[in-house]
Amino acid sequence: SEMKEVSSNKCAGGFQKVFEHESSELRCKMRFAVFLPPKAETEKCPVLYWLSGLTCTELNFITKAGSQLGAAEHGLILVAPDTSPRGCNIEGEDKSWDFGTGAGFYVDATEEPWKTNYRMYSYITEEVRPERCVSDALPVCVRCPPPVCSVSAFAPICNPMQCPWGQKAFSGYLGPERSTWEAYDATVLASSYSGPQLDVLIDQGKDDEFLSASQLLPDNLITVCSEKKIPVVFRLQPGYDHSYFFIYSFMNDHIKHHAKFLNA
Amino acid sequence: SEMKEVSSNKCAGGFQKVFEHESSELRCKMRFAVFLPPKAETEKCPVLYWLSGLTCTELNFITKAGSQLGAAEHGLILVAPDTSPRGCNIEGEDKSWDFGTGAGFYVDATEEPWKTNYRMYSYITEEVRPERCVSDALPVCVRCPPPVCSVSAFAPICNPMQCPWGQKAFSGYLGPERSTWEAYDATVLASSYSGPQLDVLIDQGKDDEFLSASQLLPDNLITVCSEKKIPVVFRLQPGYDHSYFFIYSFMNDHIKHHAKFLNA
Repeated sequence: SEMKEVSSNKCAGGFQKVFEHESSELRCKMRFAVFLPPKAETEKCPVLYWLSGLTCTELNFITKAGSQLGAAEHGLILVAPDTSPRGCNIEGEDKSWDFGTGAGFYVDATEEPWKTNYRMYSYITEEVRPERCVSDALPVCVRCPPPVCSVSAFAPICNPMQCPWGQKAFSGYLGPERSTWEAYDATVLASSYSGPQLDVLIDQGKDDEFLSASQLLPDNLITVCSEKKIPVVFRLQPGYDHSYFFIYSFMNDHIKHHAKFLNA
Repeated sequence: SEMKEVSSNKCAGGFQKVFEHESSELRCKMRFAVFLPPKAETEKCPVLYWLSGLTCTELNFITKAGSQLGAAEHGLILVAPDTSPRGCNIEGEDKSWDFGTGAGFYVDATEEPWKTNYRMYSYITEEVRPERCVSDALPVCVRCPPPVCSVSAFAPICNPMQCPWGQKAFSGYLGPERSTWEAYDATVLASSYSGPQLDVLIDQGKDDEFLSASQLLPDNLITVCSEKKIPVVFRLQPGYDHSYFFIYSFMNDHIKHHAKFLNA
């Protein structure tokens, strides 16, 4: 669909842009951010997708994560989509901070009144087309078709079927039948994973309030990955919380992790 | 005065904190941000002060500039105060984006109704006590007592007496007598400077809309510094604007510039 450039700022030798387009999947106007490294002026560069979590728009990552210098150094394009449909006038869409607007989860809803617009899984995989993901939306990455083979995440919701956030979102978007939820649960997906070899880096703040509230459940994912011999580097970072100060602190490591594969 | 810790986030191996205190100079509650590098846990570290510009609070710098990794590497403490008194209930304080709340300028007002609260120069130099400044508030740095000897700035208002922003602020805070303005104009101050040798780094976006609107006037400062043999590295950065994407892009160079002196 036609792209409108909302903003363009020179940054780290390249350009940080925001675009708006009419999404056919979501049936609303959507915005996403794109960082173009200097190398992209003369060469084709690989694309790394950042999928933000609850409460974010396309702007949180590009203003707070400090990703552009690393991406410029390694010649990576960064794409950061918004996290949900906006302005669809669905009853209840703005009622909760952890459901609806700004918290789309990356699922294709099957239930009314969400199923027409809340199709973030298809939006990301079909319309925006990720090549690589660094995100707290592990399920999308794990289900992505090749050439996805490197995945990283900050404080991800590893096993949404087993936590209050996931249960609220999945029952709202997908209905009560729990077997339909499995398609979007990273831990479940990992247990039957048979795609190309993944290389996963996960950073988790040890003092993250949502970790102690049992919303994130990384242990469940790590157990399954160990059983399936999926290589995961899980770093429990002492003292760090769930804020962008945490993400900023380790962003360069994640950029490097992906650059290793993308520039291989 | 007593400090209340508003927030504390582990960041870049250290801590990004925000404090609130009752300012005796400004007669209101003020907030400022402090980044403590890991080195500060065991050693005394030098302090670098960041003075933000128009429309900012203590948060813009710490969330958007990407300064903490560099400061951690070089063992610098960063202090970022708010830019004006807040909530003083002065008539007209919230009327303009470039005057009053969020745009205090770093002057001690002499005019009613500002003179009781708008004492940002004394607040910064006496109550917060800078050792080093990186800022767009050059006048404060130039007038600072030793040991200030390294100064840097992003897109500073170099000659406020000659631009609309400065004229509006100075006539409002200081009254019509232009000779009283000179104490806060970096270009005028540089022309009679006789303190310790300064080392100045200035980055300026070439596509900064406020540069072309003649609000910044770096040429005037550079001319005076050349005459006075004050060493200034002025970098006109092609394609960059006035946003934090610009500041983020060159923050590491400024940190390094100061670390050279502070760790000497």
